[in-house]
Amino acid sequence: MTSLKLAVIGGDGIGPEVTEEALKVLEVAAPAELKVEPTRYDLGAERYLATGEVLPDAVLAEIREHDAILLGAVGGKPGDARLPAGILERGLLLKLRFELDHYVNLRPSRIFPGVVSPLAAPGDVDFVVVREGTEGPYTGNGGTLRAGTPHEVATEVSLNTAHGVERVVRDAFARASRRPRRKLTLVHKTNVLVHAGAVWSRLVNAVAAEFPDVTVDYLHVDAATIFLTTDPSRFDVIVTDNLFGDILTDLAAAITGGIGLAASGNINPDRTAPSMFEPVHGSAPDIAGQGIADPTAAILSVSLMLDHLGHSQAAAAVEAAVLADRAELAASGRDVRRSTSEIGDAIAARVAH
Amino acid sequence: MTSLKLAVIGGDGIGPEVTEEALKVLEVAAPAELKVEPTRYDLGAERYLATGEVLPDAVLAEIREHDAILLGAVGGKPGDARLPAGILERGLLLKLRFELDHYVNLRPSRIFPGVVSPLAAPGDVDFVVVREGTEGPYTGNGGTLRAGTPHEVATEVSLNTAHGVERVVRDAFARASRRPRRKLTLVHKTNVLVHAGAVWSRLVNAVAAEFPDVTVDYLHVDAATIFLTTDPSRFDVIVTDNLFGDILTDLAAAITGGIGLAASGNINPDRTAPSMFEPVHGSAPDIAGQGIADPTAAILSVSLMLDHLGHSQAAAAVEAAVLADRAELAASGRDVRRSTSEIGDAIAARVAH
Ligand SMILES: CC(C)[C@H](C(=O)O)[C@@H](O)C(=O)O
Ligand SMILES: CC(C)[C@H](C(=O)O)[C@@H](O)C(=O)O
Repeated sequence: MTSLKLAVIGGDGIGPEVTEEALKVLEVAAPAELKVEPTRYDLGAERYLATGEVLPDAVLAEIREHDAILLGAVGGKPGDARLPAGILERGLLLKLRFELDHYVNLRPSRIFPGVVSPLAAPGDVDFVVVREGTEGPYTGNGGTLRAGTPHEVATEVSLNTAHGVERVVRDAFARASRRPRRKLTLVHKTNVLVHAGAVWSRLVNAVAAEFPDVTVDYLHVDAATIFLTTDPSRFDVIVTDNLFGDILTDLAAAITGGIGLAASGNINPDRTAPSMFEPVHGSAPDIAGQGIADPTAAILSVSLMLDHLGHSQAAAAVEAAVLADRAELAASGRDVRRSTSEIGDAIAARVAH
Repeated sequence: MTSLKLAVIGGDGIGPEVTEEALKVLEVAAPAELKVEPTRYDLGAERYLATGEVLPDAVLAEIREHDAILLGAVGGKPGDARLPAGILERGLLLKLRFELDHYVNLRPSRIFPGVVSPLAAPGDVDFVVVREGTEGPYTGNGGTLRAGTPHEVATEVSLNTAHGVERVVRDAFARASRRPRRKLTLVHKTNVLVHAGAVWSRLVNAVAAEFPDVTVDYLHVDAATIFLTTDPSRFDVIVTDNLFGDILTDLAAAITGGIGLAASGNINPDRTAPSMFEPVHGSAPDIAGQGIADPTAAILSVSLMLDHLGHSQAAAAVEAAVLADRAELAASGRDVRRSTSEIGDAIAARVAH
């Protein structure tokens, strides 16, 4: 019997609701010899508003001792003046990604059966975005001079290192070489961001030499948004920087029929710290507490977690259960409104089966 | 009789082809008392490859003496190793935008009659993006340490000044207040890019006080891509930074049925230098020289030019001619393949009428 020490951060809004369903599915999906031992951490907007704490050092140290992290969503009500801009994002979410060196931010996109894409003819969409998670414009580097005056100057510095780019590019190539189509598209803006662009281009070319079976392609980020709406089936693996990845994965979620189904893994492939799995969607305070949030993205994040931990069969079972659940729903032709826990139960039952 | 001294930069690929049609329409659309005096400048990839020159100072000085600039598109064949990354973009296109202080990069989006959107149900789309044109990550600020080594560090610095942000925000509010819906959406990523985000938020709020009739809204850039695919009719005026504007306007062009119809103005509202009008699309070397490029976006850019120069009736006539041309085509139900000059002729004939 081995144990899976899991740090669970439900967060705010619908975060805790979807996380509980994901845990429910994890319990039944985990191999018999794996004992899931969740420890819940109360972090997010609520905690900050109540205590002023975002992520105390002691809590981070504890979380670090786990095998994996399951996160729901963090974020208060839009426009809540008591929450300084970015305090939770930078103090909690990004802090975890950076401190735990989650350099691979993995976001698969596919159109699930019965899900309606806003595109008239999306085609056969099945790609994965490998978003760099620890560099780019997300480092917090930058500052403000003469704040609040007519002479204010604010900078944001995008940091790109050969070390940081090469490791995520290598991971993306490895993933591409394991997929049937073996295609990798670098998305950047090398014609404008020439310094960062040069590092990305150089390292994609260098690593490509080690993966001769992978076809390599390049798109500027603006052009990539066009192809994502006009021909998304052309993509297989996209590798891109932190900010472009943020934008492209929300667009990818939209064209595949919704952020409600998009899962993500914040992965430390070197396993020097626990990886973190979370739905792409936010805390959706407008529908919180009503038991109507769709937990599917959180459940699919559990599949990514199991895969990362080496339990690929269990991971596949969760994914298959979600697919079967959607397919049955689609075949029934009914527009059933299921509650959060009904969806969790339905998927858990399939996995247990 | 007044004269309109027009600098014409056809550029590369399909650029010169579409520019000639735009000129053709301008000739017939210009008010009787306005004499169009085009001067052609040979700039772009071809010129660079032949002479090593991108934008000689003397040429820039000459261009500066004009009333307006009409640009086709610049850019060589993808992957042409003789063209260093960004040399034309930064040495010519962005250089013109920066030197001539084109701080308002204006990009309207609407679905023209008969044009097929990739969205199943786009709704009634009619918005305009006011993209900042002289700051953000486009300044070329940044650099490289230990280039080409495993220890390479590359930076890109986004510069945001109160001066630069306020003037474009003010322009966007003024445009919003002249439109029927009077709605303005700031798009940024204030939760991550907190320094730049603070300037943008502060100045949108400050200028909003002067435009009490304009409704103000905010979206993170990632969420904005979702709404552009699921509910684009919610937008009226979007104001955003240089890079986000680049990405959003290509996406906007895609969802409205194509980059082939997207016009843009690089505007200096203070009129201290000529403004520049260009289609959003690129030089499309793959279809160049065949006379099959659609010149409509270049022609619509002429409409933006006429409007900027104060000839609003002529501007409206060009736009109306394009709409009528598309409507007739759609009504005919035929999938006619018209040549570049046939489209130019058809629209010019309508304007002359
Ligand atoms: C909340 C925010 C900081 C975050 C990001 O920008 O990475 C989110 O949008 C995401 O994509 O996970
Ligand atoms: C060619 C490139 C420099 C340019 C930009 O990024 O602004 C283009 O994409 C545009 O949108 O006009």
